[in-house]
Amino acid sequence: MDKVGYYVKFRTQAGQRDALAGLLLQAADHARDAPGCELYVVNTASGEDDVVWVTEIWRSAADHTASLSADGAGELIGQALPLLAGPPERIDLRPLGGAGLPG
Amino acid sequence: MDKVGYYVKFRTQAGQRDALAGLLLQAADHARDAPGCELYVVNTASGEDDVVWVTEIWRSAADHTASLSADGAGELIGQALPLLAGPPERIDLRPLGGAGLPG
Repeated sequence: MDKVGYYVKFRTQAGQRDALAGLLLQAADHARDAPGCELYVVNTASGEDDVVWVTEIWRSAADHTASLSADGAGELIGQALPLLAGPPERIDLRPLGGAGLPG
Repeated sequence: MDKVGYYVKFRTQAGQRDALAGLLLQAADHARDAPGCELYVVNTASGEDDVVWVTEIWRSAADHTASLSADGAGELIGQALPLLAGPPERIDLRPLGGAGLPG
């Protein structure tokens, strides 16, 4: 597989977690139709009240990059930024295989 | 959703990453048939030579717990433990929704 994966950790201003999660679920709706998106899941984290994690798998890094400039992405990013307490942290992964993925 | 998600980070003894990944891909084959397993993906990490991350989503915490005592799980755990440099770290998640999941 040449897939790429990301765990993206967003830390929000106090009390803004659910608002951010709502925006990221809108982003997931866009991702669902984006070329090469295999997984885009929005999560809260046990024991961390102001954290949202997004789990992503894309067919290629190029597909992921293209999604960031797709219609609507800039508007969602603009709405999300004021909710954050700092820049997102990203763990870059190379999926080797497993269960539950297409292909 | 009452789903649960996990990011599980395994750090191996030097040079044992691919051996561990192979065992975890066998675990993924078991997970594929386990009740309630929605995702079990084995990943390497950019820039960390001795790390394997597993991304899991289960229908419930009970389904995940049951899988750990399923046939074959103990044997794989026994083979994996000597490859590790320390105990796995786990980030516990509550998936809210997104793209690419069943249901």
